[in-house]
Amino acid sequence: MDVEKELMQRLEADEDEMIKIRRHLHEHPELSFKEKQTAAYIKDFYQGLDCTVRNCGDGYGLLVDIDSENPGPKLALRADFDALAIQEDNDLPFKSQNPGVMHACGHDGHTAYMMVLAKNLIALKDHLKGSIRIIHQPAEEVSPGGAKSMIKDGALDGVDNVIGIHVMSSMPTGAIGYHYGESQTGRSDFTITFTGKGGHASMPHLSNDAIVAGSYFVTSLQTVVSRRLDPFDTGSVTIGSFDGVGSFNAIKESVTLKGDVRVMKEATRQKIRQQVEQIAHGIEVMFGVHSTIDYDDNYPVLYNDTQFSKQVIQTLEAAKIPEVTQITDFGPQDPSEDFAYFAQERPSIFFYVGCMTDDGANHPHHSPDFMMNEKCLLIAAKAAGTATINYLSD
Amino acid sequence: MDVEKELMQRLEADEDEMIKIRRHLHEHPELSFKEKQTAAYIKDFYQGLDCTVRNCGDGYGLLVDIDSENPGPKLALRADFDALAIQEDNDLPFKSQNPGVMHACGHDGHTAYMMVLAKNLIALKDHLKGSIRIIHQPAEEVSPGGAKSMIKDGALDGVDNVIGIHVMSSMPTGAIGYHYGESQTGRSDFTITFTGKGGHASMPHLSNDAIVAGSYFVTSLQTVVSRRLDPFDTGSVTIGSFDGVGSFNAIKESVTLKGDVRVMKEATRQKIRQQVEQIAHGIEVMFGVHSTIDYDDNYPVLYNDTQFSKQVIQTLEAAKIPEVTQITDFGPQDPSEDFAYFAQERPSIFFYVGCMTDDGANHPHHSPDFMMNEKCLLIAAKAAGTATINYLSD
Amino acid sequence: MDVEKELMQRLEADEDEMIKIRRHLHEHPELSFKEKQTAAYIKDFYQGLDCTVRNCGDGYGLLVDIDSENPGPKLALRADFDALAIQEDNDLPFKSQNPGVMHACGHDGHTAYMMVLAKNLIALKDHLKGSIRIIHQPAEEVSPGGAKSMIKDGALDGVDNVIGIHVMSSMPTGAIGYHYGESQTGRSDFTITFTGKGGHASMPHLSNDAIVAGSYFVTSLQTVVSRRLDPFDTGSVTIGSFDGVGSFNAIKESVTLKGDVRVMKEATRQKIRQQVEQIAHGIEVMFGVHSTIDYDDNYPVLYNDTQFSKQVIQTLEAAKIPEVTQITDFGPQDPSEDFAYFAQERPSIFFYVGCMTDDGANHPHHSPDFMMNEKCLLIAAKAAGTATINYLSD
Amino acid sequence: MDVEKELMQRLEADEDEMIKIRRHLHEHPELSFKEKQTAAYIKDFYQGLDCTVRNCGDGYGLLVDIDSENPGPKLALRADFDALAIQEDNDLPFKSQNPGVMHACGHDGHTAYMMVLAKNLIALKDHLKGSIRIIHQPAEEVSPGGAKSMIKDGALDGVDNVIGIHVMSSMPTGAIGYHYGESQTGRSDFTITFTGKGGHASMPHLSNDAIVAGSYFVTSLQTVVSRRLDPFDTGSVTIGSFDGVGSFNAIKESVTLKGDVRVMKEATRQKIRQQVEQIAHGIEVMFGVHSTIDYDDNYPVLYNDTQFSKQVIQTLEAAKIPEVTQITDFGPQDPSEDFAYFAQERPSIFFYVGCMTDDGANHPHHSPDFMMNEKCLLIAAKAAGTATINYLSD
Repeated sequence: MDVEKELMQRLEADEDEMIKIRRHLHEHPELSFKEKQTAAYIKDFYQGLDCTVRNCGDGYGLLVDIDSENPGPKLALRADFDALAIQEDNDLPFKSQNPGVMHACGHDGHTAYMMVLAKNLIALKDHLKGSIRIIHQPAEEVSPGGAKSMIKDGALDGVDNVIGIHVMSSMPTGAIGYHYGESQTGRSDFTITFTGKGGHASMPHLSNDAIVAGSYFVTSLQTVVSRRLDPFDTGSVTIGSFDGVGSFNAIKESVTLKGDVRVMKEATRQKIRQQVEQIAHGIEVMFGVHSTIDYDDNYPVLYNDTQFSKQVIQTLEAAKIPEVTQITDFGPQDPSEDFAYFAQERPSIFFYVGCMTDDGANHPHHSPDFMMNEKCLLIAAKAAGTATINYLSD
Repeated sequence: MDVEKELMQRLEADEDEMIKIRRHLHEHPELSFKEKQTAAYIKDFYQGLDCTVRNCGDGYGLLVDIDSENPGPKLALRADFDALAIQEDNDLPFKSQNPGVMHACGHDGHTAYMMVLAKNLIALKDHLKGSIRIIHQPAEEVSPGGAKSMIKDGALDGVDNVIGIHVMSSMPTGAIGYHYGESQTGRSDFTITFTGKGGHASMPHLSNDAIVAGSYFVTSLQTVVSRRLDPFDTGSVTIGSFDGVGSFNAIKESVTLKGDVRVMKEATRQKIRQQVEQIAHGIEVMFGVHSTIDYDDNYPVLYNDTQFSKQVIQTLEAAKIPEVTQITDFGPQDPSEDFAYFAQERPSIFFYVGCMTDDGANHPHHSPDFMMNEKCLLIAAKAAGTATINYLSD
Repeated sequence: MDVEKELMQRLEADEDEMIKIRRHLHEHPELSFKEKQTAAYIKDFYQGLDCTVRNCGDGYGLLVDIDSENPGPKLALRADFDALAIQEDNDLPFKSQNPGVMHACGHDGHTAYMMVLAKNLIALKDHLKGSIRIIHQPAEEVSPGGAKSMIKDGALDGVDNVIGIHVMSSMPTGAIGYHYGESQTGRSDFTITFTGKGGHASMPHLSNDAIVAGSYFVTSLQTVVSRRLDPFDTGSVTIGSFDGVGSFNAIKESVTLKGDVRVMKEATRQKIRQQVEQIAHGIEVMFGVHSTIDYDDNYPVLYNDTQFSKQVIQTLEAAKIPEVTQITDFGPQDPSEDFAYFAQERPSIFFYVGCMTDDGANHPHHSPDFMMNEKCLLIAAKAAGTATINYLSD
Repeated sequence: MDVEKELMQRLEADEDEMIKIRRHLHEHPELSFKEKQTAAYIKDFYQGLDCTVRNCGDGYGLLVDIDSENPGPKLALRADFDALAIQEDNDLPFKSQNPGVMHACGHDGHTAYMMVLAKNLIALKDHLKGSIRIIHQPAEEVSPGGAKSMIKDGALDGVDNVIGIHVMSSMPTGAIGYHYGESQTGRSDFTITFTGKGGHASMPHLSNDAIVAGSYFVTSLQTVVSRRLDPFDTGSVTIGSFDGVGSFNAIKESVTLKGDVRVMKEATRQKIRQQVEQIAHGIEVMFGVHSTIDYDDNYPVLYNDTQFSKQVIQTLEAAKIPEVTQITDFGPQDPSEDFAYFAQERPSIFFYVGCMTDDGANHPHHSPDFMMNEKCLLIAAKAAGTATINYLSD
């Protein structure tokens, strides 16, 4: 039996099921770490199938183990299932029914294709070697997200490699995108408070204006990227929140700023952290304010292991999946991604499946009118399926 | 009859009444424009006395007219009666019973001495010429305060001059302070919003960071006072509120800043306004953001008419009130004061009566531990009474 | 004999001489500390007059002592005689003959009226008590100027009070201006160098950009005046020189800035100095640069002793000098003045004599078209003479 | 005849000649566009050899044409020969004899290996097809450098491809480094003047401080790189010169800044230019100053044509030159390089030959102690020779 061909046919036959599941999830989105119904729905799906399912991590994560009972490696496939705090602005029969919550990033699609793929891999497992672990991950959209605690709780025990897919509305449906090596930014967050001395607006000399200190901090902070990084390195420092809310006629005693840092190298991350702290200390000296800083290095840089990734991409190229129109190096991506925690632990690949609507309209991720071309579901399932079959065959 | 002497004796006899009224008001403070009970209490006090009382202005203001029925000028005496949104931190038998509201500026004392003085002036009015108008003013602590609408509603109709007093906890009890000419700052407020374009923190080039624009606005704004004003002129520009509250990982679309301006000359006020607007426009050009500015010139500079003020101060010096230990030029004061609206319309004087506690401790105005030496009540009553008697005698 | 009347008549008779001397000096201006010919000219003038003349101080200063030989106080009259490095742009028969040097501040006039006044005081000295010291001071335009070393060299030994006059082209001729107390700003200078690390413009991460550090210093420095001084106090901080001259494609290793500070109180001077140093230290921390600062507190605030000044002004008011059309409080003045060193040591007055040309045109001091109405010479001589006569009469 | 083998043997035999030439050039360095003696020396070398030599371009450039007289393509080899304004700090028998001028970048080596290689290619030309053009280029170190006018003067007429080599003291001798695609930064320069209004330091309100405007320009300029570029793009903006030289006590009327811009994409260059101009305009509005900007887009991004470059590198890999220990992708380089003008016109490669001294010491380019391991000369000659022979053989 040609297992790969058999799987492809089964997935084609199940395309409607993928769409149905995706629409169900889309209609019932749940926020990160609150995906109780979603997890129950997934768990229920595996009821009666020849696999083991267990809860994993701090949230509603699930591990589904599919064992061929033949010796061989263990491959993990990861799909995330949380939604965003966005009010959907699409007019769809399966529009979100949870006000202010929406699957605006495509995780509904990730989970839908993965469930149907898993079902079929279970059916075909006797023809494979080794084993498969499906990682249904919650809470990808927040930091620290679901991956970290699932890993701590054993999600990667015995696992040799991990594959993850993200649908991408900016790529034509049919396209597969990838990048080797550093592929998505790592992230750090910080919260910094500058405390001066409050007072009456008419008497600045008796106060110490924290808004002024905070503003000079923001302007000085621009030099971290402009002057202190190698122009060939990638780095960004954003102050996303400047809380200096007060009243007209009082000098503000303290302000709290929240910052976001993106990098493509750990060395850049450390350089930026050192410089942010140095500038904060300079503001302390310059303005005589006191600062406290709470700095958290979280998302790693997402690293696609070159050897493993090439193996997967070459498999996909060789497979000539008819729905796939191109497989191209998509370059590195700005956003950070929780999958990076898995890739930090095991040689992994995270790649992209185009889901642009047929009219080519712009439906950006994380926007109220995000929309997915559901043809991507079959493509994602076939791509992940092809990689899995080849990985677990002789 | 020596009316002045008679008044002094009556005020001494009524000192306890002043204290009792002051303590009642202190125990039942009300916020600006919400002084319903306070106004009712004052109105009730005049019940049965030989005067006319009428409501005046948008708030709970009261005018009490005392007519000698002899020809002569009309002198207005003004006392304010609102409290502040501060939780009292003093341990007093008459501590504020309204949580979060406190007479922390001394307006309870202003009103108490004025009521008792008015009662006695009514009793002695046949010995005077002209007439007296007591202006019980609400809402001094907010802008636009109570004065403006009272004036519009006729509070100064027929009035020739106005006298106002503020107790001052930084001056020893017994001291009277004054300044001729410009004596307290004028004020303007502004609210400015800078709108850029929100976006994901990892993609600054697709956004336009309003926090950065707002911060450069604050740093540039420092040049208004440092470089654009005559060093001999008084001016301050404070950003009292910088609302850029957002989340770590998003670039902020818009920020709203609130500013406070203090000046001692109208020309400085106009110069500052023009410069603030110019800098805001520069930020628009420099950062490609859009700004809207809502600029409100409110409190005038408090101007003590030199001729009238000298007349009052010389009267006080001549009177040799035994409780008064010094009468000195106190210099101009930083804060703005609603009384400036009256002084803008009529030759007026606003002077200060020390109310430092006997132990010399620091109880600053507008602080939760503000405290008044109640001996100041008699002094204020005697000072205002002396000035009134002399003004309305031949 | 009415000495005052006699002096006035003599001065009127000598008006042409004053003009002649002034024109001679104007035609032959010399820079500060290089006034060799000027000093010789002055010294020569006193040849044969009944007075003692001696050199004084580091420069070409002269003391002329006129002793009545009657007991009494000693009054000093000071006139400065240096010119400026300005190319004259006036078309005058007595235009400067020294290229690039010009009496553009009026010191030629000061010296001219003083010489003629001195000559006449010598003639009348027997009718006076006490003694007169004429201080012909060089180098007023630079810092440290001529006053400091003259004082060290005994210029004020035995002197009770000092009078100085400055002509003022912004005041109508006929006007005398004065101010009691703090009257002209005190000054401090500083030179600050920030040293980072030079390098190639294409590799900012390997360098440390001193121009960036210096620029943030300048922007932060604005907060000294805008936020750290009492709005009622006078202060200015100017960076008059920013030397970051380099080439396009190299990151600058170090920059040198020169600053100028003006104040009206010694406390403000100290506050500013402490804040400038604090900000420089903050820049060091923030940018990891090294700074060296050379800070020089020089000109004191010019303080007109209130009692002595009132005495002089009242004398002038009483004298009813016919050419004097008004005597008014001119308010404090922005520039600093070397006379302040004398006023720091003895109760003094420094006042202003209008010298606006009859057409009312604007001929600002220190400009290439500065021009003086020579009628001011007689006025200055009469004013200083009147004050002297009254001071040294019973 | 194995032409490649023959050339390698000849070059080995001529290694001493290369060293001799290089030392001669090192001893007699000349500044950009002033290389009269150097060009004469080169020209003289070709005297009597079977080639044509002609002057080319605005400077002392030379073209040496070597024609096999067989049909075939034309390959250009480029070597630059100018020195830098640096005082040599090495103790060498052939130390620079021109005070303040030094071959501190290795152009002496480029020219030396190229002359000897050319001589040998002339000797072997009958065994080749097509033709070779040696481009001896002056003035690489300045902008606009020698390349531009040589191209205009026909240097690339008939040329199909260009090869250039730079020695690199940071790479071990034996290493060859390359990068495909964008390989060295493009550059733009600008000069910007801000004009306000000069005045006396004590009267900032009557002036308009250009140093303050210029400093805010520098701090605002940091946002070009930090906020307006894609973090994945390379860009730097340096102010290399800030001329605000003035005196302590005067407010500066105008300042002149010079800037340097580096990019790896033309789109980035245009984005930066637009933003620099926008910020300058914002400063005009904000401070009421006038700005003039002179902006020059010069060096292109150095683009190594991927196809041609791969062909050359694969040839070098195949050649197994014994002195070559590694051939590696060296990544893109920060500095800009005049060769980019050639690469803009023809598919080209510019690659690097390690010249680190045997002790591994740091002798950075453009430093007074720059030093070259002369073994690099033979390696460069062999590498360029190998590429040439293979290119011009069947």
